[in-house]
Amino acid sequence: MDTIKYLLSENQMPDSWYNIQADLPEPMPPVLHPGTGKLITPGDLEPLFPMQLIEQEVSTERFIEIPEQVQSIYRQWRPTPLYRARRLEKALDTPAKIYYKYEGTSPAGSHKPNTAIPQAYYNKIAGTKRLTTETGAGQWGSSLAVAGAFFGLDVEVYMVKVSYHQKPYRRAFMESYGARVIASPSNETESGRKILQEYPNSTGSLGIAISEAVEMAVQDAETKYALGSVLNHVLLHQTVIGIETLAQLEMAGDYPDIIVGCTGGGSNFAGIAFPFIGAKLRGEKQDINFVAVEPAACPTLTKGKYAYDFGDTAHLTPMVKMHTLGSTFIPTGIHAGGLRYHGMAPLLSHIVELGLVEPKAYGQLDCFAAGLSFARAEGILPAPEANHAVKGAIDEALRCKEEGVSKTILFNLCGHGHFDMQAYTDYQAGLLVDLEYSSEEIGMALAGLPVVG
Amino acid sequence: MDTIKYLLSENQMPDSWYNIQADLPEPMPPVLHPGTGKLITPGDLEPLFPMQLIEQEVSTERFIEIPEQVQSIYRQWRPTPLYRARRLEKALDTPAKIYYKYEGTSPAGSHKPNTAIPQAYYNKIAGTKRLTTETGAGQWGSSLAVAGAFFGLDVEVYMVKVSYHQKPYRRAFMESYGARVIASPSNETESGRKILQEYPNSTGSLGIAISEAVEMAVQDAETKYALGSVLNHVLLHQTVIGIETLAQLEMAGDYPDIIVGCTGGGSNFAGIAFPFIGAKLRGEKQDINFVAVEPAACPTLTKGKYAYDFGDTAHLTPMVKMHTLGSTFIPTGIHAGGLRYHGMAPLLSHIVELGLVEPKAYGQLDCFAAGLSFARAEGILPAPEANHAVKGAIDEALRCKEEGVSKTILFNLCGHGHFDMQAYTDYQAGLLVDLEYSSEEIGMALAGLPVVG
Repeated sequence: MDTIKYLLSENQMPDSWYNIQADLPEPMPPVLHPGTGKLITPGDLEPLFPMQLIEQEVSTERFIEIPEQVQSIYRQWRPTPLYRARRLEKALDTPAKIYYKYEGTSPAGSHKPNTAIPQAYYNKIAGTKRLTTETGAGQWGSSLAVAGAFFGLDVEVYMVKVSYHQKPYRRAFMESYGARVIASPSNETESGRKILQEYPNSTGSLGIAISEAVEMAVQDAETKYALGSVLNHVLLHQTVIGIETLAQLEMAGDYPDIIVGCTGGGSNFAGIAFPFIGAKLRGEKQDINFVAVEPAACPTLTKGKYAYDFGDTAHLTPMVKMHTLGSTFIPTGIHAGGLRYHGMAPLLSHIVELGLVEPKAYGQLDCFAAGLSFARAEGILPAPEANHAVKGAIDEALRCKEEGVSKTILFNLCGHGHFDMQAYTDYQAGLLVDLEYSSEEIGMALAGLPVVG
Repeated sequence: MDTIKYLLSENQMPDSWYNIQADLPEPMPPVLHPGTGKLITPGDLEPLFPMQLIEQEVSTERFIEIPEQVQSIYRQWRPTPLYRARRLEKALDTPAKIYYKYEGTSPAGSHKPNTAIPQAYYNKIAGTKRLTTETGAGQWGSSLAVAGAFFGLDVEVYMVKVSYHQKPYRRAFMESYGARVIASPSNETESGRKILQEYPNSTGSLGIAISEAVEMAVQDAETKYALGSVLNHVLLHQTVIGIETLAQLEMAGDYPDIIVGCTGGGSNFAGIAFPFIGAKLRGEKQDINFVAVEPAACPTLTKGKYAYDFGDTAHLTPMVKMHTLGSTFIPTGIHAGGLRYHGMAPLLSHIVELGLVEPKAYGQLDCFAAGLSFARAEGILPAPEANHAVKGAIDEALRCKEEGVSKTILFNLCGHGHFDMQAYTDYQAGLLVDLEYSSEEIGMALAGLPVVG
């Protein structure tokens, strides 16, 4: 009764991404200009992104071809394995079937290269010389560093200052690929200097780091900005995960009743879930539920407001309608750094509002405990972010046990935890606590939301 | 011109290991009892190992079946990919073809689970309840921790004290799987106490840690000892690497002129090379060279003596004929902790003596530089141990360029460096130096070799 792997051959790797905008019952709310509050045009975004990514951002084509060169690099680690977690099922003594898609075999150990590679590619062919970005835990910055090395692009990563100091190994990893890593807030940008003037000891946030990276990009025509989640084109690139999973489940002769993913900016959840949500929207498969798990310490979907907000602290990005805790919200220092963003992908927020996805929040202690149970049964130690999906899946499996029903549960194991051993060290030493925010605390940041329309 | 992956399907995974003892032109020198100096019997080894592993240790059968349950677990990450490093070839501007087999996709990130899983399996079916072992850098201890979790065996790891303190993340990783990790020398064993009495500040060595693990195992019938390299059965288990590679090169329509591997205890080198050396010994393929790369700071094959010696410091293990720097040799603290053993696998030593393998030694600075070039071209950041193989392969490729010949070079990329970021941090900060030993220094440890026969 060992765990089973379902592996596709290389020629079964998808040659297109799936664009859920083609199947939405109603279109997303429009994106607004940060200065004028009016509808944004593709031209407004050109200082930030190459045109092909802007076109993907607004496209309603159902399938968008993956360029041959991107496919060629994907093939270094894709198709990734789908596992039937039979040892975990046995350890939980559940009648449920548990499947997980594993994205940890990429060069950076997570799903992030799925979008870093095409972003670097489209920038390269558009003549970009340098990419700026932000990173929290470091997964995204690492992936863009690898992609930059592949395509000969300079990469500058504004890394949230607290992570810069707490995670020197992540920094060393990015620098190994030739990226330049700057602690944010920094003195290199006006946004950074302004924050430092007001709060000299600021430990930074993703919102601030985004402001710095965007500011640097708009100043120079050969420099563009890259974002590791939130945007439509990023979610699009991640759908390679779910498309592969559909084919792998067909090999297994199965189809999920429940799909679970963790959500920070929303891209790994979208990656596994959107192809299945699309099938549901098109009426092909009805009886399937989707669970988005977020940390209780950054409860964007469960306690945030669905409203227009900025993506960054200095309000340089466009305004988007999303679930948000307010762009001034600075989440507590939980170890799942990839899930600490004040907002959520507007596309996923829209889908949650349509009632297609159920959000849930868990404290980090329960998530680490679930991650260790998973590791001992399945052998893979998950990243702290992925532990949220593991916890969500285990809870569904235990509910099946209580109710005596066998359901098929699928979750996305978006990365391994080999870079996150400080988190596991602290957890095992009993040093971690669960932090939640009161509605008053959340209300304060929300009071600063922009007034729109 | 991207890197190409050659992947076997699951049913092409080998169902037997290859035992090079079947093809040796002359048998290995015998193993001697540590107390009597006489030939050792299988019964002498029974306190340490289950009988099926002892049988593998002395077998001369060419193929030994991989148990179904071991195959089933191997399949979680095997067959592993073989890559044609076309981006690296381009970066080096070499006419050579470079292939690398990648073992970093295992749950522990290295080739070590290839033997940890069968060792745990044979112990489990023999009724063992607890395994003791030693670990230097932590790769082996991590792998045995995972294997112990799979088979419900308690695992106790004596970790070289300097690594225990320098690599807390490795310790946390092992503990995540439920293993108990003890800094060696410890107060838990007589060997440990004796060392501590004489050298209270001892930072330990693999030789000492082996003494402690062996001492604990022999005291209790339900406890056995597991070793991560050096022994014949360990090298046997690793041949799954080379057997897969043979099939993958057949897919590629190629055959290597040169095979490169790094050597600490010898198991990853044996894993990739033995199936090819066997083909050479059987006269199937003649024109192929084998290069074993070791660190200049622990030059067992290049500066050691081929002589009988103990595997451990307290002289509890049998005596074996091998290349050795003397069991009291304490190598300097280079970051390739997996290559810091005073001895070498007797089987590999024998094969080196037969003139079948050419040993080479490199300083760590050149190896780190090679590892970074590799990472930027191929995307994967190698473990410091693996960097020695990378450096060896790059040197061969550059020689091809100089000589204007196209050769086919194969090397084993035995693990990723995600756990070794302190090493890369130190290297990039210019904090590392190359250390070599004078012949006098090496002579001192060698003077203590046992007198045999």
